[in-house]
Amino acid sequence: PSKIHKYSIFAMENIVTEKKAEESHRQDSADLLIFILLLTLTILTIWLFKHRRFRFLHETGLAMIYGLLVGVVLRYGIHVPRDISNATLGCPVNASPATLLINVSGKFYEYTLKGEINANEVDNVQDNEMLRKVTFDPEVFFNILLPPIIFHAGYSLKRRHFFRNMGSILAYAFLGTVISCFVIGLLMYGCVMLMKQVGQLGGDFFFTDCLFFGAIVSATDPVTVLAIFNELQVDVDLYALLFGESVLNDAVALVLSSSIVAYQPQGDNSHTFEGTAMLKSFGIFLGVFSGSFALGVATGIVTALISFFTKLRDFQLLETALFFLMSWSTFLLAEACGFTGVVAVLFCGITQAHYTFNNLSPDSQDRTKQLFELLNFLAENFIFSYMGLTLFTFQNHVFNPMFIVGAFVAVFLGRAANIYPLSFLLNLGRRNKIRSNFQHMMMFAGLRGAMTFALSIRDTATYARQMMFSTTLLVVFFTVWICGGGTTQMLSCQRIRVGVDSDQDNSVSPERRSTKQESAWLFRIWYNFDHNYLKPILTHSGPPLTATLPPCCGPLARFLTSPQAYENECQLKDDDSDLILTDGDINLTYGDITVSTDASGAHTSGGAAFAGAATSDDLDRELTYGDHELVMRGTRLVLPMDDSEPPFTDLHHGMRM
Amino acid sequence: PSKIHKYSIFAMENIVTEKKAEESHRQDSADLLIFILLLTLTILTIWLFKHRRFRFLHETGLAMIYGLLVGVVLRYGIHVPRDISNATLGCPVNASPATLLINVSGKFYEYTLKGEINANEVDNVQDNEMLRKVTFDPEVFFNILLPPIIFHAGYSLKRRHFFRNMGSILAYAFLGTVISCFVIGLLMYGCVMLMKQVGQLGGDFFFTDCLFFGAIVSATDPVTVLAIFNELQVDVDLYALLFGESVLNDAVALVLSSSIVAYQPQGDNSHTFEGTAMLKSFGIFLGVFSGSFALGVATGIVTALISFFTKLRDFQLLETALFFLMSWSTFLLAEACGFTGVVAVLFCGITQAHYTFNNLSPDSQDRTKQLFELLNFLAENFIFSYMGLTLFTFQNHVFNPMFIVGAFVAVFLGRAANIYPLSFLLNLGRRNKIRSNFQHMMMFAGLRGAMTFALSIRDTATYARQMMFSTTLLVVFFTVWICGGGTTQMLSCQRIRVGVDSDQDNSVSPERRSTKQESAWLFRIWYNFDHNYLKPILTHSGPPLTATLPPCCGPLARFLTSPQAYENECQLKDDDSDLILTDGDINLTYGDITVSTDASGAHTSGGAAFAGAATSDDLDRELTYGDHELVMRGTRLVLPMDDSEPPFTDLHHGMRM
Repeated sequence: PSKIHKYSIFAMENIVTEKKAEESHRQDSADLLIFILLLTLTILTIWLFKHRRFRFLHETGLAMIYGLLVGVVLRYGIHVPRDISNATLGCPVNASPATLLINVSGKFYEYTLKGEINANEVDNVQDNEMLRKVTFDPEVFFNILLPPIIFHAGYSLKRRHFFRNMGSILAYAFLGTVISCFVIGLLMYGCVMLMKQVGQLGGDFFFTDCLFFGAIVSATDPVTVLAIFNELQVDVDLYALLFGESVLNDAVALVLSSSIVAYQPQGDNSHTFEGTAMLKSFGIFLGVFSGSFALGVATGIVTALISFFTKLRDFQLLETALFFLMSWSTFLLAEACGFTGVVAVLFCGITQAHYTFNNLSPDSQDRTKQLFELLNFLAENFIFSYMGLTLFTFQNHVFNPMFIVGAFVAVFLGRAANIYPLSFLLNLGRRNKIRSNFQHMMMFAGLRGAMTFALSIRDTATYARQMMFSTTLLVVFFTVWICGGGTTQMLSCQRIRVGVDSDQDNSVSPERRSTKQESAWLFRIWYNFDHNYLKPILTHSGPPLTATLPPCCGPLARFLTSPQAYENECQLKDDDSDLILTDGDINLTYGDITVSTDASGAHTSGGAAFAGAATSDDLDRELTYGDHELVMRGTRLVLPMDDSEPPFTDLHHGMRM
Repeated sequence: PSKIHKYSIFAMENIVTEKKAEESHRQDSADLLIFILLLTLTILTIWLFKHRRFRFLHETGLAMIYGLLVGVVLRYGIHVPRDISNATLGCPVNASPATLLINVSGKFYEYTLKGEINANEVDNVQDNEMLRKVTFDPEVFFNILLPPIIFHAGYSLKRRHFFRNMGSILAYAFLGTVISCFVIGLLMYGCVMLMKQVGQLGGDFFFTDCLFFGAIVSATDPVTVLAIFNELQVDVDLYALLFGESVLNDAVALVLSSSIVAYQPQGDNSHTFEGTAMLKSFGIFLGVFSGSFALGVATGIVTALISFFTKLRDFQLLETALFFLMSWSTFLLAEACGFTGVVAVLFCGITQAHYTFNNLSPDSQDRTKQLFELLNFLAENFIFSYMGLTLFTFQNHVFNPMFIVGAFVAVFLGRAANIYPLSFLLNLGRRNKIRSNFQHMMMFAGLRGAMTFALSIRDTATYARQMMFSTTLLVVFFTVWICGGGTTQMLSCQRIRVGVDSDQDNSVSPERRSTKQESAWLFRIWYNFDHNYLKPILTHSGPPLTATLPPCCGPLARFLTSPQAYENECQLKDDDSDLILTDGDINLTYGDITVSTDASGAHTSGGAAFAGAATSDDLDRELTYGDHELVMRGTRLVLPMDDSEPPFTDLHHGMRM
């Protein structure tokens, strides 16, 4: 019976281990369930808000509030008995390998490294097991939640307005973010020095930390503001400027912060200024950014080519799956190569929208749009509710009043140093000036959101990082609730016109058009190259290459041109302007109940505030570029009305799909 | 400078840890990238196959082949230097806690328990780090990949044919799976005894192990066969029987296997027979199954009620998100309560399809269908390619020829003992007999797939489980490739009619109809209750409750009836039969290029082989149930033709959405 006895013990031990694993799995399920129910609650409440046309609280703000409430309950309401199953090994080890095998009386258990823990946190670790359980690994944000959000942003960039304002957007996103980062960094360094003087600083805080803080709070995320802009049909150029800037500066801030972390001077003192190290950091910034950019564009183009050369559009499921997988592989490829997946995914999204989208079947176009819309919605609200939760459940908060006040001032001044000087400089070059009320609105719309949060929670090991994290949380809360909630007031206070049809420019008078032609030379060069060469090679739309390439390239042009392209020449095809998530689409999805009462789901976006014909901008483009093909497209779409001044009638119901 | 020096070391150490984590993250990304690229390759190849009308290899079979190839390359093609970063702790520990804190010269590192490792595997662990890296935690299958597959199965059950054959399906799924489990278990026990005699057994193999093996290989997954059935429009009753059985027996096999694992006799010897323990196992089976069932149905009904009482349908994104979150929360809730999430999700899917689906806006109906279709596609192909990969990368294979031969024989006999006797018994009660060629086809279509694989890889700690896993892999490969590939041959060999319109019964002659009325009493009682009471309460379709409830319940009925229900009374509404993924839909998605050449994405399922009017079954229902309302619906749908015998014309193009 000794053998049997051994097995019995073996089995019993097995059961104990399994029970433990099962218990942990149950706990994980329950934790995740909390978030799912939070999101469900958010959805129901936001439906009620939309139903009642209540605009002061966006779903992200609401998700934060619910998260806060649950956080309070978890922190103060529930008392779990102290879990004493953790053990601290006392034996001398001199390495921290990734995998650990522990020999417990003849049986081997495998452990994986989760991370380093501050010596003064060791007690906490054992203390509040339950609160730690609802804490996610910060890398979850970068590997699971942010990619769909960022991809969706890229995929839904209103390309025409984006490309038209490209110069300004790039200036705000690159120069502006760097300016903001350094202004905030310097101000915070001053603040930290002051705190050291008065003895308010409980740990180290270096200049690189300040710069890092500047980088992470420079990523704006005006999702609340943009949702209201959409609903109220605010000026498209303002929308494009804000959206384009916020999309790109996330990428810039992300790469910038990792370059700052990578700043490592040679020698003993790692916190002195050193030219070489700074140059190296700058090189890292350039390398990582351009590498991620190239990778993202490359996979986008590969997807476009695959969908161009195969007839995958006959099988929508395969097509959608391929699109999804290729976009995901961009992220993985970038991460595997040491670039930044989130940045790669952004540019992949833009490329997919610009080229691949045109090759997809209409069904797949809807599917991919809706899929990423859903993923974006879920991920965004998840992050914001987690933000609310973490204010109470995070265990190493360092709230320092002086630092917090300093940070708020610095964030405000940093944003101002980004917007106003750059707008002034840009207005020197722009004929279509960025007016001062637009500048104030951009200043006001500098909300901080998902990216700032994810960057600040990524590393909370040191005192400085913990203080940054706590302060960042407050900045996010304040901007989302106060600035987000005050958007409508700010709009009316700044007398910014609402109810502008997204497809109609507020500058269609002839002289304006010609001035725009002058100023947008960068855009025009790009547009011509893209329209004449890239579009025909990568998509089924656009003119045939035989028409755009010089005659000497005849055979090559014929090989690369799809039969469809010839048909396009004399066929109406809604080309590159409004296919991607137009405002109308978003409006339909989010629109007020009174606006889109068509319960059958037909795409009519009637009513509210479309103050112009859908086609006026097509005319604009037609006149601007004198493109024969566009003329033909335009005329087909035009309603029988005077086209010199779009009449403010409601003749255009159901025109925009 | 000593302080500075300390910081410098601190920073350096930090960097080393970060480098390690970064390296590991890169590796993870690269591993996942392998699978994504595999899936991409599968999609492209399967497109080529469909394009060329090549039917012998289904995408899942193809995914396995690609997985195999990559497995071979990883195993034999790539040599990585041995990773020596693992360390075995030699100090005496007497516990294996879930979290471990290790003090390495003053710094604390946190480790989490990954699992126990067999003493003889300890060397392997250190050996082949790279192969282990591409190995997923088996729980990934149960927590991430299986739920969407199973939910999609439930959500796309063709409900009318499913409910009509409910008795038979339940018999096959419950009785059949239990019979199959015990037959295979007994046969394998005989085989194992024989192996012990001839000294072929290298470890322990108990009767419970045999039963466990019987349970896991009793889960059939004829996805390949069903895809071909769809394409060729095979008889709907055969389709319903096979699909219904395969969907339900996954659930039965899953709960059955966990009940067998839970079999724990008191006393020393854990492998003797004991009545109480067996009864307890049986109780666990009943409890877990009915608990999961109740939970799944409950969340489904809650979702239906939410969508019934709110006007969420005006905001499709919110609606789709709510639907997704509620379905996911079913899984989490079941897991948190100790039930089986996958089973709960199955019944949630069926309930959602039956009730909630009717409350969704048309747009959300499409969105949810397409979303879960995509998730199902990705998860399924991922599992199958992982299966191929794991044949070479799994490191503890035990291939025992005798056991393998025994298993193949047992699997064959077990399936036979399920199908033939049960069909004989069912035919005693059924008037619409399950003919012998249908029985042979069901026998042949007993493929093993995702569920069998997931169950067998879940625990590979002991020798017996390792042998089971290796054998199961071979069973899956054989059945998917040979049986799956031979489906068309088998169909023609058994002379089973293809090209039957899914909406047309092959038994519409009047006498058949009346006999069916007799046999389907269970269905009829359920249908009447469901149609008169549940549907009106939970959905906007169905007759108003005021018409179906007795007059005394008047006020309650008026309160619960939606205004829409009154309109329904005299309005054409495609009710409960064909809304969910009809064959036509799947055909549209997967159909041959020559069949659905409508590139505009319109839902026309023209061409191929629809041998009857779409409405004949509506007539069938109308005559069978004499429901006034149905008559009104039916007449609206009927084409102007003689309704005693549906004419085999092709008048019905575009009739079915």
